Amino acid sequence: MLAPASPAFLATLTARLPPGTLSDPEPRHLTEPRGRWTGQGALARPRTVGEVAQIVQACAAARVGIVPWGGGTGLVGGQLMSDGPLPVILSLERMAAVRAVHPKENVLIAEAGVTLAAAQAAAGAAGRLFPLSLASEGSATIGGNLATNAGGVNVVRWGNARDLCLGLEVVLADGTVWHGLRRLRKDNTGYDLRHLMIGSEGTLGIITAASLRLVAPPASRAVALLVVDSPAAALDLFHRAEARLPGLVSAFELMSGMGFRFLSETLPDIRQPFAAPPGWTVLLDLGLPGGLDPSDTMEALVTEAADLVRDGLIAQSAAQAAAFWHLREAIPEANRKIGAVSSHDISLPLSVLPAFIARADRAVAALGPFRINCFGHLGDGNLHYNVFPPQGARRSDFEGLRETVKGCVHDLVHAMDGSVSAEHGIGRLKTGDLERYGDPVKLAAMRAIKAALDPLGILNPGAVLPR
Amino acid sequence: MLAPASPAFLATLTARLPPGTLSDPEPRHLTEPRGRWTGQGALARPRTVGEVAQIVQACAAARVGIVPWGGGTGLVGGQLMSDGPLPVILSLERMAAVRAVHPKENVLIAEAGVTLAAAQAAAGAAGRLFPLSLASEGSATIGGNLATNAGGVNVVRWGNARDLCLGLEVVLADGTVWHGLRRLRKDNTGYDLRHLMIGSEGTLGIITAASLRLVAPPASRAVALLVVDSPAAALDLFHRAEARLPGLVSAFELMSGMGFRFLSETLPDIRQPFAAPPGWTVLLDLGLPGGLDPSDTMEALVTEAADLVRDGLIAQSAAQAAAFWHLREAIPEANRKIGAVSSHDISLPLSVLPAFIARADRAVAALGPFRINCFGHLGDGNLHYNVFPPQGARRSDFEGLRETVKGCVHDLVHAMDGSVSAEHGIGRLKTGDLERYGDPVKLAAMRAIKAALDPLGILNPGAVLPR
Repeated sequence: MLAPASPAFLATLTARLPPGTLSDPEPRHLTEPRGRWTGQGALARPRTVGEVAQIVQACAAARVGIVPWGGGTGLVGGQLMSDGPLPVILSLERMAAVRAVHPKENVLIAEAGVTLAAAQAAAGAAGRLFPLSLASEGSATIGGNLATNAGGVNVVRWGNARDLCLGLEVVLADGTVWHGLRRLRKDNTGYDLRHLMIGSEGTLGIITAASLRLVAPPASRAVALLVVDSPAAALDLFHRAEARLPGLVSAFELMSGMGFRFLSETLPDIRQPFAAPPGWTVLLDLGLPGGLDPSDTMEALVTEAADLVRDGLIAQSAAQAAAFWHLREAIPEANRKIGAVSSHDISLPLSVLPAFIARADRAVAALGPFRINCFGHLGDGNLHYNVFPPQGARRSDFEGLRETVKGCVHDLVHAMDGSVSAEHGIGRLKTGDLERYGDPVKLAAMRAIKAALDPLGILNPGAVLPR
Repeated sequence: MLAPASPAFLATLTARLPPGTLSDPEPRHLTEPRGRWTGQGALARPRTVGEVAQIVQACAAARVGIVPWGGGTGLVGGQLMSDGPLPVILSLERMAAVRAVHPKENVLIAEAGVTLAAAQAAAGAAGRLFPLSLASEGSATIGGNLATNAGGVNVVRWGNARDLCLGLEVVLADGTVWHGLRRLRKDNTGYDLRHLMIGSEGTLGIITAASLRLVAPPASRAVALLVVDSPAAALDLFHRAEARLPGLVSAFELMSGMGFRFLSETLPDIRQPFAAPPGWTVLLDLGLPGGLDPSDTMEALVTEAADLVRDGLIAQSAAQAAAFWHLREAIPEANRKIGAVSSHDISLPLSVLPAFIARADRAVAALGPFRINCFGHLGDGNLHYNVFPPQGARRSDFEGLRETVKGCVHDLVHAMDGSVSAEHGIGRLKTGDLERYGDPVKLAAMRAIKAALDPLGILNPGAVLPR
């Protein structure tokens, strides 16, 4: 059983640490982006890995829970513990140094509290690209990105957060520090603790710094909005692009007609690119080498795919490319304004994805007069399949159907070999889904690993695995 | 304590399994490529994952050790247990089916016993590329490649074996089966058991099948042998190539003048490309998209890098490209014929690699009149830094200095933040190195994980972690 962070415990800890390390949390430490839960806890904001280790040691000795906190942008409640014995919220926000940039190694060493945008900027200043990119990059931190194995729009080319990490510095549950900030492409010396920590959502250790993989930036970009008849046609277009330009598709995003209608309904200042919202639109972003002209290359591809592309706009400038991206990036905001009955961050094997969309649409329609905005990272098979009330209604009118809708979508995803959490993680919101859909042998192994590495259960209690 | 696979145990197990599953091992199951150790054990060759599970359950019940066996090509003794209680050698060679190819998903499902060459061929037949490539690919198996996180020549572009695996089917130490053959690019549902199993060298579970990531093949290739003044110039050339053609460098291999001299000494039928062996030569292999002419692209790169490239040959045909690659691939054979005093599979941060070579050369020269053949996967920072006796002498004359040379090289690698096993793993040969150079907190975590997932210690006893 965990103990609460009592006033006596906090007083002792306060005395051991530099002034101001412990304080009351601010509202941002207790709320999450969708406003569904509120957290609790005493706030600790250490400045060094040594201070993190001290805090963990004290919590281990007193059996007090620790909730690691990055940028607070997680969507599954991994950063918030709403009930149970009062925990310490351990924010890494003051560990925000870029410790080193090694352009000749394509490596950047960042502390956990560096925002993703700051890491991108540091890489860019050295003539390199850190290709992880996602909506909340201005607030989300490297520590949180790695703890949750963040995804985003460039995974199709450069992989998830885990694929961009060469090494970690981690404070384990007993307060010892694993100094694993390797800068190596090949290192087969024992079990890959790095990948075990990445995606474990703070339940196996606290990431305090990371060695990140940079890449040489593309010489030029070509961006287009391409209208297709169906998700199947979009996937054919993806394979056509990959066959012609292997490895050069930086992003391949799908937008539905509903997405464009939501934009015009909630964000009318955004200029719509097409006279009428097309049924399905692909945002294609190519990052090209020297020697390939971006306009010619995109035009040649679109010409070759004339049987698939019904209409389209090729960006003629960086500003137009940014405007196309702004459309895609505004969709989550439009969704928030409409208010989803249920949101789903799912992935499917690419070849069954069109069949999934058709089947899910029918199944959800059978439950009620819902509107569906299906969009996302098609090249990765990752959809945000979100279900909304009909026009004129509010999501609160359908609160009673929420679990039914969610179960309906997730059951179908599971039946078609997909994942009910593609990029957002399990947190506390989806522990039931993991128990329901997870492989039982994997779950047993996870419990054994958790017990081995955090025998007292103090690290992010109740996240990923139920308390 | 482990028990030996006694005649009674083997008789019981034989009766439970289809005829011919158990047998005496053949010499290939007991020997390793460099002839340094001999194994022992009873041989089991199951045909299904169910039979693997039965064997593991029986071994767990009797506490008999299991040594998983792939293609027998490992260089660190992971596939051979020379002493201790007689184990079961569990060969996956009869599980050699390609279960499925999904070209529209860029996925291939292979059983553990599929050779790497067969997996490459199956991908090629579907118009795709499985980019893992290494010297022993005709014998090495997918199971072994993943158990050891194999590397090879294309890591610089497409990553190590672990980066090409989407999912696994694994028999755990209690005989339960984790059905994790996912075909997803994004799946954040719990701890990444996949990456924990990959590279654990059969000590945490037995991989029986894998879901592999395929890519679209480059539209064309350009291959060249380029002479440079130094390893530092070679690295500058690498960054020049990556800046111009980001992500299109498929291989970037370094060869030393000693390598060419060894070839002419031991394999005189191989035609030498240069009149005199150059000090340092790079084998550059570009895999290009449609729209870029291979000859023009290579020539433009070489012209741009005229300050770095002293001499060079651009392959004018596929046959010539193959001849260039044959030179590189013949070096290990030449090395075997000469007979190394000590071989080192090391990696270093790219920026310190030239300084490492200079310092190591000096340190080894101080120990004796050795010849050094330093070659390998420069783009990954992975060198095979191998030390040989002087011309006219034999390695046996220097056997007494072997450990001294190894320690000297590995100490320097460690001091310069490198790895003493870049791509070959720990096996049984390097457990002492892991204890000596490994982070103690990581080692403690590894032991805790091993105890949690294999409490009886039956899986590949003595590999990675000492018995």
